[in-house]
Amino acid sequence: MFQSFSNDGNPSDHPPRLAALRKVMKARDIDAFLVPRADAHQGEYVADADARLRWLTGFSGSAGQAAITADRAGVFVDGRYTVQARAQLDLDHFQPVDFPKNRPAGWLRDALPEGGRVGFDPWLHTHHEIAELREKLQDDNIAIVPVTNLVDEIWPDRPDPPKGKVRIHDDQIAGASAAQKRARIAEVLRENQQQAAVLTLADSLAWLLNIRGSDIPRNPVVLGFAVIDENGSVQVFANPEKFGADLCQQLGNEVSIIHPDGFEAALANLSGPVRVDPASAPEAVFQILEERGITIAAEDDPVVLPKARKNSAEIDGMREVHVRDGAVMARFLCWLDANAPGELTEIDVARKLEDLRREAGILDISFETISAVGPHAALPHYRVSEASNLALANGQVLLVDSGGQYENGTTDITRTVAVGDMPDQVRDAFTRVLQGMIGISRLRFPKGVSGRDIDAVARAPLWVAGLDFDHGTGHGVGAALCVHEGPARISRVSEVPLAEGMILSNEPGYYREGAFGIRIENLLVVTPAESPDGRDMLGFETLTFTPIDRRMIVTEMLSPAERDWLNAYHAEVLEKIGPAVDGETRAWLEKATAPV
Amino acid sequence: MFQSFSNDGNPSDHPPRLAALRKVMKARDIDAFLVPRADAHQGEYVADADARLRWLTGFSGSAGQAAITADRAGVFVDGRYTVQARAQLDLDHFQPVDFPKNRPAGWLRDALPEGGRVGFDPWLHTHHEIAELREKLQDDNIAIVPVTNLVDEIWPDRPDPPKGKVRIHDDQIAGASAAQKRARIAEVLRENQQQAAVLTLADSLAWLLNIRGSDIPRNPVVLGFAVIDENGSVQVFANPEKFGADLCQQLGNEVSIIHPDGFEAALANLSGPVRVDPASAPEAVFQILEERGITIAAEDDPVVLPKARKNSAEIDGMREVHVRDGAVMARFLCWLDANAPGELTEIDVARKLEDLRREAGILDISFETISAVGPHAALPHYRVSEASNLALANGQVLLVDSGGQYENGTTDITRTVAVGDMPDQVRDAFTRVLQGMIGISRLRFPKGVSGRDIDAVARAPLWVAGLDFDHGTGHGVGAALCVHEGPARISRVSEVPLAEGMILSNEPGYYREGAFGIRIENLLVVTPAESPDGRDMLGFETLTFTPIDRRMIVTEMLSPAERDWLNAYHAEVLEKIGPAVDGETRAWLEKATAPV
Repeated sequence: MFQSFSNDGNPSDHPPRLAALRKVMKARDIDAFLVPRADAHQGEYVADADARLRWLTGFSGSAGQAAITADRAGVFVDGRYTVQARAQLDLDHFQPVDFPKNRPAGWLRDALPEGGRVGFDPWLHTHHEIAELREKLQDDNIAIVPVTNLVDEIWPDRPDPPKGKVRIHDDQIAGASAAQKRARIAEVLRENQQQAAVLTLADSLAWLLNIRGSDIPRNPVVLGFAVIDENGSVQVFANPEKFGADLCQQLGNEVSIIHPDGFEAALANLSGPVRVDPASAPEAVFQILEERGITIAAEDDPVVLPKARKNSAEIDGMREVHVRDGAVMARFLCWLDANAPGELTEIDVARKLEDLRREAGILDISFETISAVGPHAALPHYRVSEASNLALANGQVLLVDSGGQYENGTTDITRTVAVGDMPDQVRDAFTRVLQGMIGISRLRFPKGVSGRDIDAVARAPLWVAGLDFDHGTGHGVGAALCVHEGPARISRVSEVPLAEGMILSNEPGYYREGAFGIRIENLLVVTPAESPDGRDMLGFETLTFTPIDRRMIVTEMLSPAERDWLNAYHAEVLEKIGPAVDGETRAWLEKATAPV
Repeated sequence: MFQSFSNDGNPSDHPPRLAALRKVMKARDIDAFLVPRADAHQGEYVADADARLRWLTGFSGSAGQAAITADRAGVFVDGRYTVQARAQLDLDHFQPVDFPKNRPAGWLRDALPEGGRVGFDPWLHTHHEIAELREKLQDDNIAIVPVTNLVDEIWPDRPDPPKGKVRIHDDQIAGASAAQKRARIAEVLRENQQQAAVLTLADSLAWLLNIRGSDIPRNPVVLGFAVIDENGSVQVFANPEKFGADLCQQLGNEVSIIHPDGFEAALANLSGPVRVDPASAPEAVFQILEERGITIAAEDDPVVLPKARKNSAEIDGMREVHVRDGAVMARFLCWLDANAPGELTEIDVARKLEDLRREAGILDISFETISAVGPHAALPHYRVSEASNLALANGQVLLVDSGGQYENGTTDITRTVAVGDMPDQVRDAFTRVLQGMIGISRLRFPKGVSGRDIDAVARAPLWVAGLDFDHGTGHGVGAALCVHEGPARISRVSEVPLAEGMILSNEPGYYREGAFGIRIENLLVVTPAESPDGRDMLGFETLTFTPIDRRMIVTEMLSPAERDWLNAYHAEVLEKIGPAVDGETRAWLEKATAPV
């Protein structure tokens, strides 16, 4: 499914839907109803059937939540989506609310009388979310009441849940068979004296069974729940039509595919302790278990950490796809230099890049490409549409953040390139961003250190000039899975220790509002690192091989070590990508990777 | 009191004392007794009367604790003191225990039968310490029992508590009168609906009343407790003999000096809520209040943060003493270069430096000088004695960490200098340490950031080479108060936000066991910093002005920005210190501050 650039929706569609919702709220004696963007799996993308927030309000961002009362309709969106929400919402009927500065609890306290009743769909909110809401509102005597989804009741043409075909993810690529993975998780459960674990994250299910799906765009996951027991048997709760008979056979006798309608009954039949992750599992799962008196072990999803720590086969796959993707990027950047500045637009750029990646065999792009010129580049999450589309004019930067889903790996790369002549202040900022990015790339650090502890290394070159950027430095990346994957990040708020095999993005940036934006992003894998003193240290191996625009760099600002890193990196780009390209691209690549 | 270099004590003095302690333990039906290094004020230095750990065991380090049972005597010391403890203890009778890897709770669990009774002096342990111990040992049915101090009972010639004279700390230097400070703290109490706060930290008392004392070496504090009420009246519990009549008059009617014997009765008379800091106040204070049913507000000492955030008069005082101290350091380093390598020893170095500081008018040194040659420099807390004293031989480093207590400020500086020819590996490591130190010095950072968030900036240049150091990057420093002051630090474990006016050390290091050690330390004050984007940022102003040994620097490793910083720093050293020195020193200074 190619990226679409259409301007979706019409703000005037939504007030009648809002009125209809208020009608059922009143009939059900509900004073407020919560409509989150999330589905039951808390993923970044949702199926059309789960796009309730968009259907109700018109807001299509990847994160957000609405709270509807009889006379107010707050739409909570974070800084990334402030501009988009104001454009997509009918502001006479919906009020954008600045999140997380304002949180639903406080908003509800203001909006509701004492004794008010807040309805929510317990499948769409995590246990932590509801517990926090209950705690904050208990003094106001406001009840948080689970109900069936009221939006679904008023959505006449609501799409069916997706039935995307499931395919096997090869054991060779996964580096372990599903049976081995099941045994490994079962062992964790036995060690913790847990009878079973409930898995609700779609990528946990995909990783565990070595399967991939096509239910939703960009994330090759299978929407479904699973229960794994202490013997490694797995019940999957997903529409059996998605699994062919062959596939069921391949999964073996210890894996049963059960219609989602059977999930509740299966939960009710468990004997505890049952491990459930309160930070990601729906409140409904907790409710069902609690009502039956089944002991809950509220702990993290046991698949999350093994999934994050890639094995050598997964890392090999990631290395391989990064060479293919590097060739795509080299062709793309060569084409760009030959055609810009000029008539080309942001959409042309995104289409060309997606075309080249399709030719290279991707199954999908790994997220909506960000193709942003000049002032658009200052919006870290800009998504071009027909209405916003700008041409690549001389003196502007072009920021392109993109990636591909290959069979054996996932890529995510950002390059910011000069379109024509660059002002000095842009080159100064670019060089600082590059210094931060190099700082992380060449870092080693003691075991036990978390993303929080190294985040400042990426920011220091900006900080010393009074500059900063308002997003994390890096996120976890799945291996042929979701491009945003937990649990580790490089961020002020991430205290998960970095561990061998984790794959993370390294993407500092700088954004000057209304003028330009810069981001440079490579993927890294955490590796053991040498220490002459025998310290237990880790470091990073770079996976991404694409030239960094030399025209943007103020070479005199670099330290000897930074310059060495850059030249060594470019030499490696030429060595790895050179054999995969020819003609004009090869000539371009040689020039683009020359030493500074 | 000049620093002493004698080898204190004789290990054989201690087994008879241990036997005597066990006898009273048995008589009192106590299975274990805890003997901490701390006094009731949890300071770094203790009076001789409080040196129970040293008297009982022979161990004289600044941190540690003994746990004595009928057949074991564990002495818990951290990595700084492993070597020293083994040298000072009679190892047939005392067992050094590696702390914090091993903690008293676990050790007691192993050493005691179920139902055992652990005695402790509730004045010498904080509330948090005892609460943690109780929680960890409750499952083993081990009781933690407050008792009178059993060491005091068997210590026939125990010195009297000190009666060091108290002096007024000038309002001009303090930047605020004691009345203003009392009013400020009282306002905090009223805002929090607290009737009073109990102050048990000796430097809190000194700061609050603008007084300085001479009870203990190095820290110009007055040992005593205080209670401040919501109107700003203060009861001080300290020996009145320490305060002259004049001084009492100067303190005014709202400050009463009461003998410490009256402290318990005064606590019992309070009406709550009474604010007490569970992390620093003795368990005894909590006991007394709890027994009377007085409500306790367990919060941080309200003086700690105002004390840490120096006002402009305090910062001016610190700037001024750093110029005087810089002249001392210039004379010292000039003298050193003229006389080393050669016959000079570590003790000669420490004596010369103390002599020069005395000439410059210090009231005391601010801690025991570390003067360490070659392999001794690899021990971050080495303290030279007659027995260990090494000569400054060619090819060694000399690490000198020292400081002075001036009337209007406190200094703390470390320089590592070349004695003759330096091997390349030493210069490489020195340059990395310098890069980390420069990294912090020139950093700006957003408000809200803590020491933890910037610690990696000091370590990154070492980390990239697989190197590191096992101490914090920096500690808070008092203004004419304790050289180690809370609450903020630059350290992996410090989450206190850095705030304007805080003074911190910046002292990365590197230690190669058995070979050499490096540390470079300047003091910094946190200042507002400019941001072209209008971000709310902070930065550092350097207070310390002493050349950094250019012979130790591999200039080619520095970035352009690092080199600029170093040259600008040296120019400022010459500008500030040049006018305060002449002759040979002035000539030396010009050479030592020449650009690289």
